[in-house]
Amino acid sequence: MTLPDCWTRPLPRTDEHCREQARQRQSVLTKPPGSLGTLEQIAITLSGQQATATPAVDRVHIAVFAGDHGVCAEGISAFPQAVTAQMIANFAHGGAAISVMARHLGASLEVVNLGTVGEVPDGLSGVVDATIRPQTGNLAQEPAMTESEVGAALTAGDHAAQRAAEAGAQLFIAGDMGIGNTTAATALACCLLGQNPDALSGPGTGLDARGVCHKAEVIKRALGRHGEDQSPMGALASLGGLEIAAIAGAILGAAGRRIPVLIDGYIVSVAALVAVRQQPELGQWLYFGHQSAEPGHRRVLDALASSPLLSLGMRLGEGSGAAVAVPLLRSACALHNGMASFADAGVSDRS
Amino acid sequence: MTLPDCWTRPLPRTDEHCREQARQRQSVLTKPPGSLGTLEQIAITLSGQQATATPAVDRVHIAVFAGDHGVCAEGISAFPQAVTAQMIANFAHGGAAISVMARHLGASLEVVNLGTVGEVPDGLSGVVDATIRPQTGNLAQEPAMTESEVGAALTAGDHAAQRAAEAGAQLFIAGDMGIGNTTAATALACCLLGQNPDALSGPGTGLDARGVCHKAEVIKRALGRHGEDQSPMGALASLGGLEIAAIAGAILGAAGRRIPVLIDGYIVSVAALVAVRQQPELGQWLYFGHQSAEPGHRRVLDALASSPLLSLGMRLGEGSGAAVAVPLLRSACALHNGMASFADAGVSDRS
Repeated sequence: MTLPDCWTRPLPRTDEHCREQARQRQSVLTKPPGSLGTLEQIAITLSGQQATATPAVDRVHIAVFAGDHGVCAEGISAFPQAVTAQMIANFAHGGAAISVMARHLGASLEVVNLGTVGEVPDGLSGVVDATIRPQTGNLAQEPAMTESEVGAALTAGDHAAQRAAEAGAQLFIAGDMGIGNTTAATALACCLLGQNPDALSGPGTGLDARGVCHKAEVIKRALGRHGEDQSPMGALASLGGLEIAAIAGAILGAAGRRIPVLIDGYIVSVAALVAVRQQPELGQWLYFGHQSAEPGHRRVLDALASSPLLSLGMRLGEGSGAAVAVPLLRSACALHNGMASFADAGVSDRS
Repeated sequence: MTLPDCWTRPLPRTDEHCREQARQRQSVLTKPPGSLGTLEQIAITLSGQQATATPAVDRVHIAVFAGDHGVCAEGISAFPQAVTAQMIANFAHGGAAISVMARHLGASLEVVNLGTVGEVPDGLSGVVDATIRPQTGNLAQEPAMTESEVGAALTAGDHAAQRAAEAGAQLFIAGDMGIGNTTAATALACCLLGQNPDALSGPGTGLDARGVCHKAEVIKRALGRHGEDQSPMGALASLGGLEIAAIAGAILGAAGRRIPVLIDGYIVSVAALVAVRQQPELGQWLYFGHQSAEPGHRRVLDALASSPLLSLGMRLGEGSGAAVAVPLLRSACALHNGMASFADAGVSDRS
C-alpha cells in the first residue's frame, strides 16, 4: 500500500515572529483594542501561517471531491444515487452553488471524481478523473474500502493540494459531493468520538424523522460490524467514503505546503477530524467556515475545539459554506493591511 | 419644529409578487430545499424589497454620522472626547476601519458631522457639515437636545438617504462615531425597553468593571430625570445623541425610498429601535449585520425580533460590522441569480 507523505510527514510550523508582529500591529490601529473581534485573530493567525506582514487570501483554490456510497442500498438518502454524477456535470457547467461561489470569489475550482455509479461525460472542463471504484462497499455489511483504496484516495487529495500550491493558492477549500455521505460521515464521527448514532444522525439532504431513525439503525449495524478500532486509517477504510478520504488527504496536503485551509460543513469537518487524529498539529492550519444545520456537526466542531465563522443554517456541502465565509478572511486582511495607526492618523489613544 | 417626512409618512410596502417568485425560484435550484439557509431568505426578502427577479447589492452607500456627547463630562468613556473630530479626519483620509471596508466593498462613503467639540478641518473630502451644536447636553443633568434639534438631526439623516437614492444605492448602511455614545444608546434602550441600566451597560470602547458600574449609575440619574415618557421623540430629545437621531432619520429615509438597510451594531440598532417604535413597518426593510460584543445589544435585537448575520465579537461601530456582512448579501444574490435549476442542469430531484 502506498500512502502519500502528507499522511505521515510532520507538518510545518507557523511563523511565530510574523504572528507576533501582526499582534503588535493590531494593537496600534485606530480602533479600541480587540474591537474587531475574530477578524483580528484571523489576521494574526494568517500572518503566522503565511509568514508575512501582509496576509492575503486573494487566490483561493476550491477542490470538490465526489464519490458514491454503497450504503445507499440501505435507503438512507432523500436523493437518488445518480445525482452524484449529474452534479459533477453541473459543477463543470457552472450551475451548482459552489460553481457560482467560485466565480463570485474569483477562485479556481476543480472537481476530483473518485468514482461514481452514474456515468460522468468525458471532457468536462475542470474535472479530474481519479476513479478508484464506482462506489464504496456498503458499510452496513462490509468495509467501505481496502486500506490500499484509502491510500489512493488520500493521494488523489494530496495531488489536488499540490495543484493548489502550484497555482499559488493562499487558501484551500475542500468540498464534497456524494449521495449518502452524511451516513458515512456520521459513522466515522461516532467511531472516532465514541458517540451513539442516535445523537449524531440528521436529515442530510432531507430525510424525515422516520428516515433519520432508519439511518441511525444502519449506522449502528456498521459500527457493530466495525468494532473498536479508532485508528484514523482503520475507521476510514471501514466506515469512510472515497471523497472523505480524499478530503483528509487534501487538507493534510495543503497544510503540508503551508496553505491554510478553510473547512466547510459536516462532511469536510469529519474528514478534518480524521486528519487531526492522524496529525494533531494540523489544527493550527484550519479555519472553520460555518456551523452546519446537520446536528452532528456541533459535536465534531467541539471535538476539534473550533468555532465556526458563520451560522446561517446552511447544509448544502460542496464547500459552499466555506466559500461563503471567504469574504470574512478577506475583510480581516483588508483591515489589517489598510487601517491607519493612532500615530499615523493623529488620533488620541486611550486616556 | 420641522420634522422630515420620513418621521411621519407611511413607509412603502415590499413587492409580494416578486417575493413569491423568488421563493419559487429557490425551490427549483440544484440543491436540497432550504439548504442555503439564511441566504435563501435574504434573496427572497431582497427580491420583494427591490421589486425584482434579480436582487443585487452591488451599489452600497455608507453614511457615518458623528456627534459629541455632553455626558462625557461624567467620565463615562475610555477615550478622550477629542477623538470624535479626529476620527472624522481619519474617515476622510481613508485610515479608519469603515474607510478600508468601503474601499474593499467598492461602496460609497460619506461622513455627516452633526457637531463635535474638537475642530474638524475644512474641506475634508466626503465630509458633510451638518453641525447642530458642538455636543449634546449632559443627559445625566439636562435634556440632550431640544425637539427642534432632534428634528434637524433627523433631517440631516434623511438627506443622507436622499443622496444614497440619487446615487442608485441598492443597500444603505449607517454608521456611528461619537465618544460617549454607548452611554446615550444604553439610556435610550433602557427607557424604551423598561430595562435597568445594570443589565444593559457595557464597556463601550474599553471601560473596566468599575467604569461600567459608574456608567450605569450615570444612566440611572438620566432615567430618573427623564421620567416615564417612552415616546420615540421624547426619548431621543432627552436621552439621545445628535448622531443617533440622524441615524434614525437616515434609516427611515432609506426605507421610505425603498432602499433596504443593513443595520450595524449597538448604536445603530438602538437608533433602529427608536425608528421602529415610530414606524413599526420599518422592520421589513432591515437586515442586522452582526451581534456586537456590547452586552445591551442582545436585548435590543430581541426587542426587534431580529437575528444578526454575524457574531464575531466586534464592537467598533462606524458601520464596520454591517460592512463586514455585505458579502453575505452579495453571495445570496449571486447564488439566487446564478444557480441552475434541476431541469436546466438535468439533475434528478428528490426521490
